[in-house]
This record gives sequence, C-alpha cells and structure tokens, in this order.
Amino acid sequence: MAKKKFPLAHVYRLLEPGPVVLVTTAHAGRTNIMAMSWHMMIDFEPPIVGCVVSDRSHTFGILRKTKECVINIPTVDMVKKVVGIGSTSGRSVDKFKRFALTPGAASYVKAPLIEECYANLECTLIDTRGAARYNLFILKVHKAWVRPLGKIVRTIHHCGRGRFRVDGSMITVPSTIK
Amino acid sequence: MAKKKFPLAHVYRLLEPGPVVLVTTAHAGRTNIMAMSWHMMIDFEPPIVGCVVSDRSHTFGILRKTKECVINIPTVDMVKKVVGIGSTSGRSVDKFKRFALTPGAASYVKAPLIEECYANLECTLIDTRGAARYNLFILKVHKAWVRPLGKIVRTIHHCGRGRFRVDGSMITVPSTIK
Repeated sequence: MAKKKFPLAHVYRLLEPGPVVLVTTAHAGRTNIMAMSWHMMIDFEPPIVGCVVSDRSHTFGILRKTKECVINIPTVDMVKKVVGIGSTSGRSVDKFKRFALTPGAASYVKAPLIEECYANLECTLIDTRGAARYNLFILKVHKAWVRPLGKIVRTIHHCGRGRFRVDGSMITVPSTIK
Repeated sequence: MAKKKFPLAHVYRLLEPGPVVLVTTAHAGRTNIMAMSWHMMIDFEPPIVGCVVSDRSHTFGILRKTKECVINIPTVDMVKKVVGIGSTSGRSVDKFKRFALTPGAASYVKAPLIEECYANLECTLIDTRGAARYNLFILKVHKAWVRPLGKIVRTIHHCGRGRFRVDGSMITVPSTIK
C-alpha cells in the first residue's frame, strides 16, 4: 500500500468532514491506538488540529509524555476494528495485534502509522494549556500521507451508540453563489 | 416546523459527525449568519463545543461582544444557501434576507434560530483564552432543538473547494466487538 506524501496545505480536506480517526502513540517499547471523533482543524498551513483526549484513556498520559502521535483515518471497511479499538484499553491490550493491524514507520515521529488506514498525519503536541480544564490538546501536523486517489474513499462519522454515518455522494457547489 | 426540545446529553450526536453548521449572532438590531466547519464536541453534558471563528469574519467581533450565538445545522437541500452564506460577509449583506431564511426566537439567547435548519443549539461563549492565538472559542449549549424524527436527515461535510460529502447510509456496530 504505497502512499504518497500529501500537501500540508490540503490536510484540512481530510479532517474537516469529521471522520472518526485512530490516534496512535508509542512509549517504552509499546504502541497504542485510540478511536477519536472529537477533533477539528484550527489552521490550514502548517495544519493545526485541536482534539479532546479523555483523561481516563491510556493515550492521555502517553501523549503528554511523548508529545507526539499519528492521526490515522480509517475507511468504512475497518468499522468493526474501529469499534473494537474504541471498546478496549491499551493498558491491557496490544491493539495492533488484537485487531490485526500493520504498524508502519513514520518519518517525523516515533508513533506508528496504521498501514491499513487511507491517510496518516504525523503530529506533535504543541499546546496543552486546555488539557487540565477540557482535556483539549493542540497538535501540529508535520507530515501527511495518503493512499493514491482513484478509488472512492468512504470514511465513517460516529453518531453515538455505535451508529455511524457512512460517506455518501460528493457534490460540488461553486462559491459563486451569492 | 415545530421542533422538539432535544436532550442536552445527546447533543454530541448532532455535532460529532462533523456537519457544516451555520452560526447566527445578533447585535445592535442586526443579525448575522456564518458557515462553519471547524468545530468539535468537548464535553457531553452540559454540552461544551470548541470552534474556530476567523478573526477576519464579521461574526468574530459580535461573538466576543455579545458572548452568545446559535449553532444551526442545515441539511443537504440547503447546500446552495450554505455556500452563499460562506461566500458573503455580514458587514454588507443581511443574510437572512439575501438567502430567504426565517429567523426564529431563541429561548435562552438573543441570537436567532434559523427555522429551516433541522437542529438548533443555543450557546453562550464561556472561554476565549484560545482566541488570540488560535481564534478558538469555547461554547456551552443551554438549549437544543431538533425537528421531530421520522424523516432521514442528511447533513453535509465540507471537503474543501466547494465540495461536500452528503451523509450516506447509517450503519450500527455493537460495541461488544473486542
């Protein structure tokens, strides 16, 4: 699955539609994966991303310690693995093994890419001032990778209680409508 | 279009999938509408929402001054109006008039509801500490309204350059998969 480097100025097109993402971290020889829906773009280039990581999650402590992660974007064919990842804790489960996912080497951070995901964003943690009150972290994207286009990519959007909206049709509306 | 009060604990189901929303404000006898995609849930109940409002937008100043707004969620049938709203400035355009939208009275804030939108969240601004550096605002939802269910609701997700993903099918995956 050869991926192409993706322009940082276009990263917003990956996250702006609100897909469920998988956040990977690495610390002390172990990796972890967390499912996340509470994220948003904050700036275009360099891409800055805001996200909420529960202080009860295993990822919370690792992210604060290592100050880096990868945001991996899964497609609908991975939905069962996404739910499994969101229903287990990295404290007791090696999620790459349990869910048969392939860790790949990132180029800027030590956290692994999930090879099966259609896009991967290598991030560092640049601001934790909202962490104590809101579990709010601010990330900077340094490298972005995406599977070459050509195939329709359908991401999933969590709607609560295990329900997901799958991407439907793409429509284009020119901004000349005023 | 009679709407029902929507439980605050379920507001995340409206915003978590990442739809484009329309933010309304009111100040000095004038209303305004802004299209927004950069938002995320921060907490469940009371629902706390993070969002980015450009400091070049007309809404930025009004939001800081009045400390309140409504987040209105449009459906795909409104996409041309959404693009028009995103392509014009409230400095020179009365957007309710220009786009033939109906302002409704909110019950907690002075900003108007957009009646045509399928859901409306009445918000106050509770934290601006991220505003100077990131244009980041933190809102608290006090009242939520939603059109009675029964009809399939399709929201839109901005993918850049006037392209939008329309909601596709809904799938359910029980969290017992581990």
